[in-house]
Amino acid sequence: MLDPLLFGEIDPPQRLLMGPGPVNAHPRVLRAMSADLLGQFDPEMTEYMNQVMALYRPVFGTANRWTMLVDGTARAGIEAALVSLIQPGETALVVNFGRFGLLLQEILTRIGARFETVDAPWGEVVPMEAIREAAIRHRPALICSVHGDTSTTMAQPLDGIGAIAKEVGALTYIDATATIGGMEIAADRWGVDVITGGLQKCLGGPSGSAPITISDAAADKIFARRHDEKGIRAADAVDGQGPRIGSNYFDLAMVMDYWGEKRLNHHTEATSMLYGARECARVALGEGLEARYRRHRAAGAAMSAGLRAMGLTLFGDDAHRMTNVTGVYIPDGVDGEAIRTAMRRDFEIEIGTAFGPLAGRIWRLGAMGYNAMKHKVLITLAALEACLNAQGCQTPMGAAVPAALAAWDDAQ
Amino acid sequence: MLDPLLFGEIDPPQRLLMGPGPVNAHPRVLRAMSADLLGQFDPEMTEYMNQVMALYRPVFGTANRWTMLVDGTARAGIEAALVSLIQPGETALVVNFGRFGLLLQEILTRIGARFETVDAPWGEVVPMEAIREAAIRHRPALICSVHGDTSTTMAQPLDGIGAIAKEVGALTYIDATATIGGMEIAADRWGVDVITGGLQKCLGGPSGSAPITISDAAADKIFARRHDEKGIRAADAVDGQGPRIGSNYFDLAMVMDYWGEKRLNHHTEATSMLYGARECARVALGEGLEARYRRHRAAGAAMSAGLRAMGLTLFGDDAHRMTNVTGVYIPDGVDGEAIRTAMRRDFEIEIGTAFGPLAGRIWRLGAMGYNAMKHKVLITLAALEACLNAQGCQTPMGAAVPAALAAWDDAQ
Repeated sequence: MLDPLLFGEIDPPQRLLMGPGPVNAHPRVLRAMSADLLGQFDPEMTEYMNQVMALYRPVFGTANRWTMLVDGTARAGIEAALVSLIQPGETALVVNFGRFGLLLQEILTRIGARFETVDAPWGEVVPMEAIREAAIRHRPALICSVHGDTSTTMAQPLDGIGAIAKEVGALTYIDATATIGGMEIAADRWGVDVITGGLQKCLGGPSGSAPITISDAAADKIFARRHDEKGIRAADAVDGQGPRIGSNYFDLAMVMDYWGEKRLNHHTEATSMLYGARECARVALGEGLEARYRRHRAAGAAMSAGLRAMGLTLFGDDAHRMTNVTGVYIPDGVDGEAIRTAMRRDFEIEIGTAFGPLAGRIWRLGAMGYNAMKHKVLITLAALEACLNAQGCQTPMGAAVPAALAAWDDAQ
Repeated sequence: MLDPLLFGEIDPPQRLLMGPGPVNAHPRVLRAMSADLLGQFDPEMTEYMNQVMALYRPVFGTANRWTMLVDGTARAGIEAALVSLIQPGETALVVNFGRFGLLLQEILTRIGARFETVDAPWGEVVPMEAIREAAIRHRPALICSVHGDTSTTMAQPLDGIGAIAKEVGALTYIDATATIGGMEIAADRWGVDVITGGLQKCLGGPSGSAPITISDAAADKIFARRHDEKGIRAADAVDGQGPRIGSNYFDLAMVMDYWGEKRLNHHTEATSMLYGARECARVALGEGLEARYRRHRAAGAAMSAGLRAMGLTLFGDDAHRMTNVTGVYIPDGVDGEAIRTAMRRDFEIEIGTAFGPLAGRIWRLGAMGYNAMKHKVLITLAALEACLNAQGCQTPMGAAVPAALAAWDDAQ
């Protein structure tokens, strides 16, 4: 039995997290989170909330007024978007090319919505024309897709999806958890209504806050389902005509009314996470989004080149690879978990395992946010080479690092 | 238009938060949160998760195996408990004596459950015999109550509620957001199945993590509704016979399987919040729970005595007052918001406003967690006296502080 009085102060090992996320947080983010708290409606707190809204608009590539945070992990943002956007009985079209497309379907089922899918095998993406055909066939109320699905390391192209949605009268939702801050998010150019993200990947923060942006059209649909809870509703509150949203916590009508001028007393904003989310965006905008995306591209190119120079085979379609996480086949005869353990034990580096049909078949190597850096990619490759060869899997010694270095420089 | 590139680094004013929460975090908690992150399934991370489970058992007064965190604010814990515990169509009995009793009803409505209430006017609590009668009459599947409802500053007695539930075959749920760490929580002695809390009140941490404890009986009911999502389910996974839980994020079957030996890959644990939650419990257990409850009692007694010495009238039933937040009538002719503004502007002290039927009628003064300290209560009273008199509301000058000091010493 653990004796809690014996637990010492928090003291995690200094580990380099080069998996599919979470990754190491930027030190500025952690420092920002150590600031003391404010009252929920103190003017400085609401000003910080307004700043967060302004900071995340460029990050999402949008002018949407409703750009804010959902208090929970990235998955909380996904559920908040879906439960607020789609009504029970309505049909969604899910662009399905990995584990997180399955998650969208799962959440839709739980909230009582119907769905159809347009699918690609794991390792590929769905052609835009196939999405269009499915949309015309099924006339969904919502088209939803993951942007980058870390389970397969593929990034779904999204330019044009908004036009398809418009053609069939649908709204659109994108889960950009694994790409926000690392690959371009262009809500307005894509014509996408709602996008959610997380901090723990390319934004270089901790899990626990989900940035979200909501178009005016989506906000209209959500506000039509507004039902303020009894304990906090204004005397003159008017409920929407639509059915009540199936969750109180994820009711984006109330969340918007909390972030907006009404300052509805919904949840108590997670202040430290808000400080962290604010700093994540400040770091990203300070670097410049274009420079940041280029840095992630360089890291992905370097990782890919290094792995190939070792003689390893990458997983998935080269043309639609996420820049920030790379899947690679575990060589025949190699115990993937033994290599991961050696990487962690001897080098304090974490690389990722895989899910479902890819479990035991590929590793996933990430280079995200604060870890999308040249030296971290090079160290990871050198360590992987050492671990593979130590366990009897011969690779060309010393080949990975120079190949990665050259690829980095080419991509910059 | 705000220009995000002009926002400086986080720099909140040094404000003393003496409202109904959130309050200032203990510095140790904020420092713990600045530790770097770990991979989700790194052995050190899962060890920290196990430690959190061990740390929160005494805080909840329980030996429950399933004692962990829900990633979200306190309200997320409430919704997770209700959506997982009660099935659509089942009936809950809500012990209703304030705003957060209304919230329980609201959440139950959204998840498709029925409910009956047993009510007390705001400012009173519900007699145990009335709960028993209502339970026998309605034969609910779940009896649920708030412990301390900050909207009315009342604390519902809970000794005996478990026996009533047993008598009628119900499970029990308690929202202890506002009391955990400040008033005794005795899950096992009360015979309560599920209790949730938050960090931002008497535990002296930031909002954003909701500790929860779940009895084996409740876990059995929840696991009977287990439906692992497709992308992560084991090949040999067996679904429960009960209806699927209406939320993926709040599916406590999957959350338990993530915290348990299965290590199901559900959400990505909010690592920094977990570090903070861990430190909140370490601080509480290090002080000793009995000493901590005594300190909160002393703070509440001192605040009450000081307010009365000023000639003000306390709100609500003296016998069932929360120790950590005190409601007091705004004197006739005084502009409550003007006083709150003066307190903040001149003294950097925040006191609380009120909701619903009490809006504009009472202030709520908290002394919670790191702020349940003698000097902070005295400073708050002295400042309130100064602000009232400056705005023309004459009170006996200098009376509050010595009365509070005497009451503190008596209660210690």
